[in-house]
Amino acid sequence: MATENRNPEIRKDAVNNRLVILSPARSRRPSDFKSKSQSKSDSNPTSNGQPQCPFCAGNEHQCAPEIFRFPEDSTSDWKVRVIENLYPALSRQLQVDNEEHSQANGSTGEASLGGFGFHDVVIESPVHSVHLQDLSPAGIAVVLLSYKKRIEQLCAVESISYIQVFKNHGASAGASMSHSHSQILALPVIPTIASNRLNTMKEHHNQTGKCSLCSINTHKLLIYESTHFTSISPFASTFPFETWIVPRYHSSHYHQLDEDKAFDLGGILKLTLEKLSLQLNDPPYNLMIHTSPLHIVSSELPYTHWYIQIVPQLSTIGGFEMGTGCYINPVFPEDAAKILREVKLPNKE
Amino acid sequence: MATENRNPEIRKDAVNNRLVILSPARSRRPSDFKSKSQSKSDSNPTSNGQPQCPFCAGNEHQCAPEIFRFPEDSTSDWKVRVIENLYPALSRQLQVDNEEHSQANGSTGEASLGGFGFHDVVIESPVHSVHLQDLSPAGIAVVLLSYKKRIEQLCAVESISYIQVFKNHGASAGASMSHSHSQILALPVIPTIASNRLNTMKEHHNQTGKCSLCSINTHKLLIYESTHFTSISPFASTFPFETWIVPRYHSSHYHQLDEDKAFDLGGILKLTLEKLSLQLNDPPYNLMIHTSPLHIVSSELPYTHWYIQIVPQLSTIGGFEMGTGCYINPVFPEDAAKILREVKLPNKE
Repeated sequence: MATENRNPEIRKDAVNNRLVILSPARSRRPSDFKSKSQSKSDSNPTSNGQPQCPFCAGNEHQCAPEIFRFPEDSTSDWKVRVIENLYPALSRQLQVDNEEHSQANGSTGEASLGGFGFHDVVIESPVHSVHLQDLSPAGIAVVLLSYKKRIEQLCAVESISYIQVFKNHGASAGASMSHSHSQILALPVIPTIASNRLNTMKEHHNQTGKCSLCSINTHKLLIYESTHFTSISPFASTFPFETWIVPRYHSSHYHQLDEDKAFDLGGILKLTLEKLSLQLNDPPYNLMIHTSPLHIVSSELPYTHWYIQIVPQLSTIGGFEMGTGCYINPVFPEDAAKILREVKLPNKE
Repeated sequence: MATENRNPEIRKDAVNNRLVILSPARSRRPSDFKSKSQSKSDSNPTSNGQPQCPFCAGNEHQCAPEIFRFPEDSTSDWKVRVIENLYPALSRQLQVDNEEHSQANGSTGEASLGGFGFHDVVIESPVHSVHLQDLSPAGIAVVLLSYKKRIEQLCAVESISYIQVFKNHGASAGASMSHSHSQILALPVIPTIASNRLNTMKEHHNQTGKCSLCSINTHKLLIYESTHFTSISPFASTFPFETWIVPRYHSSHYHQLDEDKAFDLGGILKLTLEKLSLQLNDPPYNLMIHTSPLHIVSSELPYTHWYIQIVPQLSTIGGFEMGTGCYINPVFPEDAAKILREVKLPNKE
């Protein structure tokens, strides 16, 4: 697959204001990038003929408490379960007034806060071997609407400022369980990347009167377009084949998603994951939903716009990236988009 | 090794202003953290009895051009060689006026710049199996003074704004060559983490009149102290057993290091790496020197202070960290410091 010869280039965008060095790999063509560690899980491991995975249907009693399931009145025929994380990073028991318990040391400038928050798990299927991309668009929509429902519940907790929905697929992407699942972490603070994004998009809006994701550049970067969403390789991609799915309508908060749009998003997410999987040899990946802080009225946020970021795990992060926050990406997004656009899915195109 | 029972805690410091969630691991005690993938390299691989590694003495002709060696007039008995990277991330050939060639798109806010810069390699020993920590304090000082000399050379290039020195030890920390080496990347821009650090430390100085690293809290966090340097577990450690080596004297730029202090730093760096290696089972690690931007007179920088960050690779980064920039660290720095303080090195203590 022919791609242009390119010189290294330093880029940043008006969404994250993050520097990236695009530097062509000398040894590999963009189309040669493949995952070394395939992420496909085995079938459900068994002990004495009994399935061992607590996320599988029939093993619900092995899990931490359930928050809700879909359909609500289902028994063993549930489609999605939202449960507490057995090993939460933050504690929902620490029902403290955080302001009262936060400690700041004036002379050192160090600050600490009790680790209050919620850490939930969304089990995306009752069947061990079924991954997110294997579900139908309607099946993925159920997962997406479960995120929405749980976020709406967590919005009621006043001290929660930000909610991060994410999915780690494959052990090297951080998944400790191979059964398909995602996680929801509700935080009492606004994390750095979210506040940087907010500031960057606000500044762009002040300068141009536009939301930077409403007017995003898709020239040469488009992978696919559905009724309500666009799948692109972002202009300042930090990782090879990094992919964003962006609403084509202005929306500050993910949980504004309605059923109609969730079905459309299910379709484009399925197609995007299938293309990445086929082209890159079923890579481990991380999926993140970037939304806006809670408790801000959405009419006050004409400049911020939620989107989904998908990062296939194809490269190792080293000291340069860790030290500078600037990533070296050997695949230009124009090349990644062209390759992904042209991936032919069986039974589809 | 007994450590206190702890609740999760959210922290940030006055150096990087980066949020971290300290959340005790349920399954492991801090003293149980060990690297799964040992980073020790094999002996020099041979082909027909000839050593194959281009970084080994005798194979200098297989490398990209040499910049300098130490001692200068040595032949095959060199101690350290500084060479160009055969696969540079930035191009020293792009001798362009970057301002002229930078492109900014006003309506999308996207910006790009030609990828001009320098990417060099420091070969730390002529012998394949000798790693940085195996050298004597004086031998490590030669490596440290080679960084200084190369930085001073690169300071002469007006369009270079920032220099990142880093070392990836072990394949899973990003090292593509097992022969002990480090890298120097000279950039035409100030990367995000450096400018965030500068802003955070400046604000702290404005508020308190103090440099945050001159007045850093070492209570319960001290690992070791030499004449001129302190080795600590930082208050808001982002990774298990993250370690900093901080000058005890105020200094904004790494390349102010003199021979006397380089020898002292060689000693404490050797001891710190040996302690980490013994406690954590020779883990892959990243080492970064955090200095200040160039072309700023150091008398104007009473608030910024260089230091070394060492991160053993013990955990996987997942979607939460990637999405928020907030790291979940299962080992409290107070516990890491206590464990590392108590590590007994053979033939030393």
